Amino acid sequence: MRSSHSLAFQQFEEVLSQIKIERLSPADPQVVELLESTSQDPGLIQSPFQMEWSAESDWEPDDRSEVSSGSCVLVPVPADPNSGSLLRSVGYAEAEQAISTYRFLSDGTFVLSTKYGQSIAEERIWFVSEHVRCRSSVLRTSEGSAVLQTSFASEVRRLSL
Amino acid sequence: MRSSHSLAFQQFEEVLSQIKIERLSPADPQVVELLESTSQDPGLIQSPFQMEWSAESDWEPDDRSEVSSGSCVLVPVPADPNSGSLLRSVGYAEAEQAISTYRFLSDGTFVLSTKYGQSIAEERIWFVSEHVRCRSSVLRTSEGSAVLQTSFASEVRRLSL
Repeated sequence: MRSSHSLAFQQFEEVLSQIKIERLSPADPQVVELLESTSQDPGLIQSPFQMEWSAESDWEPDDRSEVSSGSCVLVPVPADPNSGSLLRSVGYAEAEQAISTYRFLSDGTFVLSTKYGQSIAEERIWFVSEHVRCRSSVLRTSEGSAVLQTSFASEVRRLSL
Repeated sequence: MRSSHSLAFQQFEEVLSQIKIERLSPADPQVVELLESTSQDPGLIQSPFQMEWSAESDWEPDDRSEVSSGSCVLVPVPADPNSGSLLRSVGYAEAEQAISTYRFLSDGTFVLSTKYGQSIAEERIWFVSEHVRCRSSVLRTSEGSAVLQTSFASEVRRLSL
């Protein structure tokens, strides 16, 4: 369940999504391609994975809800146990390839920051129980720090067999 | 702007609220009353304040949106610079008087935990710019750790004159 807040227009968006997260092999062609295009040393990466999503929003023309979907390859590059960078084949705020930086807060909250051409996104992920996690995002303009949009997702894990 | 997620029923709620926060004097009769009823040593408190809210939800019978409002006196009792307890004249999850514990994470995020008769609430507040803050809450059953509901608010400060 994901809610977005458009601050300037006080508009809410409600989205129901299915997200599939799968570990990839470092030798997976998609991982190799992302490493090559970002000139990343393959020896420094850890636990690459893929996210696929399928989302149904209440925010479509004519009140129809429509399903959007996509997928993304993500490759962590730890600098130390608490921080590093994350390569993404597709960005969150803009559909371009992106390199994010991440760090863990004192309680394990994962904070991810990404600079795009037009905007800066900060995402936070924290587990509130073994199978429920929360994820928030804040999107601001890259010039100045006007906050454009926030979002919040409550995600329930379904274990795959 | 506040969104709630009812996890079991996958129901969204959208709320527009005005919140007014005012510093109170330690000698304010409401503060004195709260300290007396919780047997709190007045010498240990810091910066008592009052919150008033007025909220309009999309979640009312007959699709009417109705305004609810209330107010609460809050009294911080720091144990050290990063943690302590917070007395509330009215709780968040249940309308009873409550004593919460709070702590600050490494990046300044404020985390507040409250045990009620039937439930446990964890709230988080963090500033994303000088005048915009985010606030999330997670409500779970006091027996076991089933997550009942989450919520997320994007709050824009309006400075009073």
